[in-house]
Amino acid sequence: MKNRVVLSLAAALLMGSTIVGAADAEESIEYRQNVFSVMKWHFGPMGGMVKGKIDFDAEDFSRRAALIAALAKMPKEGFAEGTDMGETRAKSEIWENKGKFDGGMDAMVEKADALAEVAKSGDLDQIKPAFGALAKTCKGCHDNFRSESK
Amino acid sequence: MKNRVVLSLAAALLMGSTIVGAADAEESIEYRQNVFSVMKWHFGPMGGMVKGKIDFDAEDFSRRAALIAALAKMPKEGFAEGTDMGETRAKSEIWENKGKFDGGMDAMVEKADALAEVAKSGDLDQIKPAFGALAKTCKGCHDNFRSESK
Repeated sequence: MKNRVVLSLAAALLMGSTIVGAADAEESIEYRQNVFSVMKWHFGPMGGMVKGKIDFDAEDFSRRAALIAALAKMPKEGFAEGTDMGETRAKSEIWENKGKFDGGMDAMVEKADALAEVAKSGDLDQIKPAFGALAKTCKGCHDNFRSESK
Repeated sequence: MKNRVVLSLAAALLMGSTIVGAADAEESIEYRQNVFSVMKWHFGPMGGMVKGKIDFDAEDFSRRAALIAALAKMPKEGFAEGTDMGETRAKSEIWENKGKFDGGMDAMVEKADALAEVAKSGDLDQIKPAFGALAKTCKGCHDNFRSESK
């Protein structure tokens, strides 16, 4: 563990990244988990509507899509160097491949913005692929960077 | 407790409100607490900048203000009828004065939108009163509708 900390610090210094202390790490972990949890609250009913499990409500879908677009911009800053230890399912691969991870986060932002835009049309045929494209960015990072258990 | 539940149900039926079950209540409580926690993450540094405890960064302040404006729209839906029991500091007064509470939530949204707009100017002299007006809406609801302890 000590070696890992030293390596993380060295890598962060080399890359000019922000390094956070243990207390801040806990706050960061809580922050990003809370953001994802709030996203889930909105994403769930949207998925239900796309899959036809819930009646499609164009206005409610569009409202949630706009909120998801704002939420998508939030988690990235919760993954500073040094926030890989504690009650988190975030894999160390995040910080070993920070460029790839950040790219995934940026893709989520882009696809969430696109979905929010298309959702204004209220046209489910256009919404479905845009929703799928966003869901794919979630899955991409979960597959690569999230453990099954803490 | 039983009487309170019956009264809540009756009141909700009379007002045509959504009533949620115990499992949903827990989810709602978690949802709104997570939203407020995420708001705090952004509101903290904004307050620091307004008070001169942190160097003012116009771009970062404006970014956070835009996120706060989106977040301000989220908690209201987490306060459905029947979500007043459990691990929450929400007082029953919320549901006894739902109109006043919802008005407070709407004021928060309005002041957060105004702050996000003014923050684009990067002019701290304009930002300060707008930030104060938003903070006042937070305090208003906390004073009236939030217990000191769970």
